[in-house]
Amino acid sequence: MRLSRYFLPILRETPKEAEIVSHRLMLRAGMIRQEAAGIYTWLPLGLRVLQKVTEIVREEMNRAGAIELLMPTLQLADLWRETGRYEAYGPEMLRIKDRHERELLYGPTNEDMITAIFRAYVRSYRELPKILYHIQWKFRDEQRPRFGVMRGREFLMKDAYSFDVDEASARLAYHRMFVSYLRIFARMGLRVIPMRAETGPIGGDQSHEFIILAETGESAVFCDAGVLELPVPDETVDYDGDLSPIVKQWTSLYAATEDVHDEARFERETPEGRRIHTRGIEVGQVFFFGDKYSKPMHAMITGPDGVERPFQGGSYGVGVSRLVGALIEANHDEAGIIWPASVAPFKVGLANLKAGDDAVDAACAKIYEALETAGVDVLYDDSDERPGAKFAKLDLIGLPYQLIVGPKGLAEGKVEVKTRATGARESLSVDEAISRLTLA
Amino acid sequence: MRLSRYFLPILRETPKEAEIVSHRLMLRAGMIRQEAAGIYTWLPLGLRVLQKVTEIVREEMNRAGAIELLMPTLQLADLWRETGRYEAYGPEMLRIKDRHERELLYGPTNEDMITAIFRAYVRSYRELPKILYHIQWKFRDEQRPRFGVMRGREFLMKDAYSFDVDEASARLAYHRMFVSYLRIFARMGLRVIPMRAETGPIGGDQSHEFIILAETGESAVFCDAGVLELPVPDETVDYDGDLSPIVKQWTSLYAATEDVHDEARFERETPEGRRIHTRGIEVGQVFFFGDKYSKPMHAMITGPDGVERPFQGGSYGVGVSRLVGALIEANHDEAGIIWPASVAPFKVGLANLKAGDDAVDAACAKIYEALETAGVDVLYDDSDERPGAKFAKLDLIGLPYQLIVGPKGLAEGKVEVKTRATGARESLSVDEAISRLTLA
Repeated sequence: MRLSRYFLPILRETPKEAEIVSHRLMLRAGMIRQEAAGIYTWLPLGLRVLQKVTEIVREEMNRAGAIELLMPTLQLADLWRETGRYEAYGPEMLRIKDRHERELLYGPTNEDMITAIFRAYVRSYRELPKILYHIQWKFRDEQRPRFGVMRGREFLMKDAYSFDVDEASARLAYHRMFVSYLRIFARMGLRVIPMRAETGPIGGDQSHEFIILAETGESAVFCDAGVLELPVPDETVDYDGDLSPIVKQWTSLYAATEDVHDEARFERETPEGRRIHTRGIEVGQVFFFGDKYSKPMHAMITGPDGVERPFQGGSYGVGVSRLVGALIEANHDEAGIIWPASVAPFKVGLANLKAGDDAVDAACAKIYEALETAGVDVLYDDSDERPGAKFAKLDLIGLPYQLIVGPKGLAEGKVEVKTRATGARESLSVDEAISRLTLA
Repeated sequence: MRLSRYFLPILRETPKEAEIVSHRLMLRAGMIRQEAAGIYTWLPLGLRVLQKVTEIVREEMNRAGAIELLMPTLQLADLWRETGRYEAYGPEMLRIKDRHERELLYGPTNEDMITAIFRAYVRSYRELPKILYHIQWKFRDEQRPRFGVMRGREFLMKDAYSFDVDEASARLAYHRMFVSYLRIFARMGLRVIPMRAETGPIGGDQSHEFIILAETGESAVFCDAGVLELPVPDETVDYDGDLSPIVKQWTSLYAATEDVHDEARFERETPEGRRIHTRGIEVGQVFFFGDKYSKPMHAMITGPDGVERPFQGGSYGVGVSRLVGALIEANHDEAGIIWPASVAPFKVGLANLKAGDDAVDAACAKIYEALETAGVDVLYDDSDERPGAKFAKLDLIGLPYQLIVGPKGLAEGKVEVKTRATGARESLSVDEAISRLTLA
């Protein structure tokens, strides 16, 4: 993509309203724009990251055997009355009346609707187990939205729902999603810790929050440092096999959010040198809630014994839009963002230091075309800004590699490749640089 | 995908509420489920088609140089007051109040918001031309939603917006989108006709609707049969070049919707034997509206002469979710849907006629794995339903190819490949069938 044709509105000044670094950097780097409190436009650079994050979540859900569908954003209030949640949910639910005065709401989550869908079509244990998921915009009318996309009102969530005939089978679904979550966040270069957590308004008797450690996190967390060293299953993990050893390994060391923290147990189980007490950002949460929704909604399954019973369920959320902010909280320095390769909006930023100079233009055009042909995403800064501004912009937007082409180096047959994360610089020929960045 | 693991709720009975064939087939084939009037869940099979349609639209927008972003579903009422559209829009606009009694609306379109975005960042003609687009859910509170996804309330639309410093340049943007639309629909196997049309609530002085001819269409249309024979530009079309000859060729024969139809002119310009008077389905519309939004919103551009002026704009919509219905209206027979290859949810339906038979299971497993490895999307019906039910289901869901494996044929080393569109059947060895379907 040539910058002259792109839409990348970089802000020179740090917006005052942004309290945390990810919010500041997303505004400055032209990734988002606020349209109303907690409601954002994803500008082109931000959308590319959001799409990459979404695609990793989708791939890993599919790998774990979950089936994608897409529920609408608006739901009938009557549906939520079946479970008593319409009254219970409180002011965070955005309630709407249509032109016929019919009561709707903007879905904050989808347990009720997915249960209605399941109830409409599935009768027998032979059709189970099933895990269904969707990736859709949700709305929660936060009293005080802040921290940019980290606590927005309109936000993108992946929510999966499991359906099983009995509790033993439902625990297997919980394990599948648990392991899938380990992989999702690892693929984004994030080190997450599953922590025992409160179930909150979703309900149920078991829940883990998946948490990134960060000083700017919204809640206090306590864990054993050993959990930071645990291995994440690779892509050959067998989701039809026994996943309980993995789950056991990841849940046997102490890790809990402040809501369920037990200081005495923490001190008993965790050697003093390994006790971590810091703050964390929740990027996912899994719940087992049994028949909490299936029972009031009468979503019944006939078991092998011919007896009808409500299905056993769980739900599994990932905050997709929030993750973009969390990724920046975990990956930045004073100059800007440092994208992990798997979610970078472009892999390479190509800086032409003297636009209008025939030799430099030709070298840049050659590099740009060669990399694009090789399938490498390049943002080519073909503007006539001064070099310093170009360097600052590339550091700010955080592409993994910068390829810098100027008249002086080129006269000696050299261009420069800078790795954003380390600051390391290499002086290479044009062909070497192309080959280096194609293989990187 | 193994059917036993999928979620494909086929309906045995034709739903009474569905008035048109696409709605009936989408319900029966387990593609959608109604959650409220005009509000649908996209079940897994339907979502796969929606995603393929979306991806074609995205690819062709990008090819034409449009830049993707993503605006939120909810907008501030105050934004629409700047253009006077908040009052003017009428009861189709879904108006919402949040917990602080702030007035919001669920966006039915985005001219106002994109103009505000543009106004916030762009000042100079040197940053133009630009075309920005997004693919997002919209809501229009239709008085009487019907025809399934063809006239839903919550629907997925691609809407692009062009920004130019003067009218001559804005016409080039209009041409770009016009040509891009020819390609989008042709890639889906649809023959569309651009017709002169009313501008309606979007406004402006020039508009074309892109229309598929269909007896079940919502409006009467009149055109010269010659337009059905015109060539669609291939992917080498140069969007930076002069596209006016293509646009001229596609607009010089008579083609108009009933709103702007001129019978005298139709009879004068079109030989009697070439006059088509039928009904049509609108799948896209392009508008040039000049400064209709930029002027009231004071979205100003400094031109080469140093003088500020409001930008010249256009907007360009494709009804993405509606297209799924339109595709079925154009591609079905009495047995069900007949998907064009480019939007088919799976390419191949593999029918195991005797699940549980070792030889048949082994052959199916081999075929399934070989095709999946080759990147061919296969839906493998591994259920123990009787053959007749499997054939009916595969015809109903309309995958381009059926691969039928039964004990009798297999004893002679043969399986059967049926092409859904033609009904043609071929008897092939297992290896021949794999190779046939990989290359098809």
